Amino acid sequence: MPELQRTPERFATEEYQARLSGTRARMARQGLDVLIVSDPSNMAWLTGYDGWSFYVHQCVIVGPSGPPVWFGRGQDAQGALRTVWMPEDAIIGYPDHYVQSEVRHPMEYLAARLTDMGWNRGTIGVEMDNYWYSAKAHGCLVAGLPDARLTDAVSLVNWQRAVKTEKELEYMRKAARIVERMHRRIADKVEVGMRKCDLVAEIYDAGLRYDEWSGHGGDYPAIVPLLPSGPDAGAPHLTWDDQPMKPEEGTFFEIAGCYQRYHVPLSRTIFLGTPPDAMLEAEKAVLEGMEEGLEAARAGNTCEDVANAFFRVLDRHGIVKDNRTGYPIGLSYPPDWGERTMSLRRGDKTVLQPGMTFHFMTGLWMDDWGYETTESIIITDGAPDLFCTLPRRMLVKS
Amino acid sequence: MPELQRTPERFATEEYQARLSGTRARMARQGLDVLIVSDPSNMAWLTGYDGWSFYVHQCVIVGPSGPPVWFGRGQDAQGALRTVWMPEDAIIGYPDHYVQSEVRHPMEYLAARLTDMGWNRGTIGVEMDNYWYSAKAHGCLVAGLPDARLTDAVSLVNWQRAVKTEKELEYMRKAARIVERMHRRIADKVEVGMRKCDLVAEIYDAGLRYDEWSGHGGDYPAIVPLLPSGPDAGAPHLTWDDQPMKPEEGTFFEIAGCYQRYHVPLSRTIFLGTPPDAMLEAEKAVLEGMEEGLEAARAGNTCEDVANAFFRVLDRHGIVKDNRTGYPIGLSYPPDWGERTMSLRRGDKTVLQPGMTFHFMTGLWMDDWGYETTESIIITDGAPDLFCTLPRRMLVKS
Repeated sequence: MPELQRTPERFATEEYQARLSGTRARMARQGLDVLIVSDPSNMAWLTGYDGWSFYVHQCVIVGPSGPPVWFGRGQDAQGALRTVWMPEDAIIGYPDHYVQSEVRHPMEYLAARLTDMGWNRGTIGVEMDNYWYSAKAHGCLVAGLPDARLTDAVSLVNWQRAVKTEKELEYMRKAARIVERMHRRIADKVEVGMRKCDLVAEIYDAGLRYDEWSGHGGDYPAIVPLLPSGPDAGAPHLTWDDQPMKPEEGTFFEIAGCYQRYHVPLSRTIFLGTPPDAMLEAEKAVLEGMEEGLEAARAGNTCEDVANAFFRVLDRHGIVKDNRTGYPIGLSYPPDWGERTMSLRRGDKTVLQPGMTFHFMTGLWMDDWGYETTESIIITDGAPDLFCTLPRRMLVKS
Repeated sequence: MPELQRTPERFATEEYQARLSGTRARMARQGLDVLIVSDPSNMAWLTGYDGWSFYVHQCVIVGPSGPPVWFGRGQDAQGALRTVWMPEDAIIGYPDHYVQSEVRHPMEYLAARLTDMGWNRGTIGVEMDNYWYSAKAHGCLVAGLPDARLTDAVSLVNWQRAVKTEKELEYMRKAARIVERMHRRIADKVEVGMRKCDLVAEIYDAGLRYDEWSGHGGDYPAIVPLLPSGPDAGAPHLTWDDQPMKPEEGTFFEIAGCYQRYHVPLSRTIFLGTPPDAMLEAEKAVLEGMEEGLEAARAGNTCEDVANAFFRVLDRHGIVKDNRTGYPIGLSYPPDWGERTMSLRRGDKTVLQPGMTFHFMTGLWMDDWGYETTESIIITDGAPDLFCTLPRRMLVKS
């Protein structure tokens, strides 16, 4: 067999080791002997693993000592070999007849391997509310590990990811340039009569192609472009169809640039025609609220402080937004580019720290229109750094 | 509020009602009073719901009578209103402070609503091993429904989807034209030195753009393009980077066309240079095996019969493939375009029926190269219908 062609590592081994140490310290505080990590973003953050294989059961195990262990489908062990920083003996592949079988489950195989390794005792943390940790997976592990106590550690690793390193911020800044290019392309191309699927092709093109000037291309974002128009823009998560763009409708574009799996989301709204007064007034309120929110988004303040500052302005303008106004961002895989820890909302007392990164999601979804102008930010001791430099207003094309 | 602009329905209400009846009949045979469906593909198949909202908890409930009930985040109820066939009172939105909260869970809210509706007793089926039904969701439902017995019904609806209707096949045939265009675009554009991210932009472009001749554009496939090259092609689920295509390497392209969420996957391999003998010999074996497999893929035979026919040829050529050789396809959302019921593999005794659709996945992932030439097929009483007409061989460009 020829020498393995390894993917260039995204981070120095020291950075992975620091992540591992931080995770182990947190495990110790929560009284965990072993941690089983099913979230692909957490798996990648701990090991570098990258591949579209999360549709079968897989995980990373952090034991009491040594490197993390990658566990997945046998054929995906090949992908692990090429992408993780650990040695080959930290990769376990399970046989293919465990895949989507009605009579055997990959977690049964995992329980047996954990037992072989002596990691089947004490307290084992699992990500109880993660997409990739099903009720059945949990049942199989509980049954297969009778000498262990399984306990919820759902956001343990996610919280470790909150403060970004310089290298992570470097990747996110590249993602920021990508999402700016995506929005500029939209602004150039969108017009009445253009089919929405064609506009989506332009968005992908701008998000993926190699840019000679920047020296890199783009990766797939964890969410596909969201771009509902007119009354449909009152529904935040519709995707697209193949119908022409209509006159006198607003469309918001909720998209992200992605580089090395790091995301910078950014939303803008474009109106083809003359926006109704209600939208213009709402924009005024949102932009004013964003200024107040950004002012509050600094180290030492809380998540709630940002939300309160923003919502105070909206309230003053009589606008009701009954959902959170932001979430942390960074490394991600489908179905979500958020980190699922803190939220910018009332009641969230998390204290902001320098190097945390958020999508300040100030979108409004009303009964018959929607409006999104957002920013992605880095928390500092002073005013936050904005990832993007795109003008913060609705674009009107007539 | 102006009149709601509803998305044109993908299927006649009668078709949805037939799906519901079939599902209820199966529920009765399994002794279920209520069924909770978390899989977005199953949700869409039963109700028409379409939106990228599966990153928060949501489901469809099939009760003892009446239409299915859509349950999801309050802001996504707007998307449900626009896409489902049921009346507005069959849509339940939960408040936003249940989203990604560490102190409350959407399934607690669901349990309360089920209790209001009197659907909190008897036997309730849940999709235990579905991505979107987490261990925590299950725990909350068990705790919140003390008078019910929760039981696994993971693939109940998936099995109902196996035999396609004429309308579904019509959508899949459109997806087939799309995937053919994608492969033709790749063949036109790929060359040594082309950056892989630019090739992916071409693939998206061909998969999305409106085609005047066909009268439709494309939707997002449930899996992003997979196109590993050279030794990396030994790993089936790597995505792409921004590096140039190299000479003397083979690349397989595992992609799908998608129309109205219906998928037709198709893989082809392109070699830039002179393929090594091992690959040419493997191709010969695969193509011969495919002929045998297709011959066996007819109503009345079993899934295993197809796998055995294919593997018999591979064995004769001394090629070891230790994974399954196909799976059912159709309506799908990320992370998988397979239906997760039967598999074309040894031991699967499922009897093939006319109208079932499969991706005959005959890919080989060897130590230092990979090869994929596949077909998507419709089972009939005779030889299967092939969805695509693309020549079944490796393309060599030098």
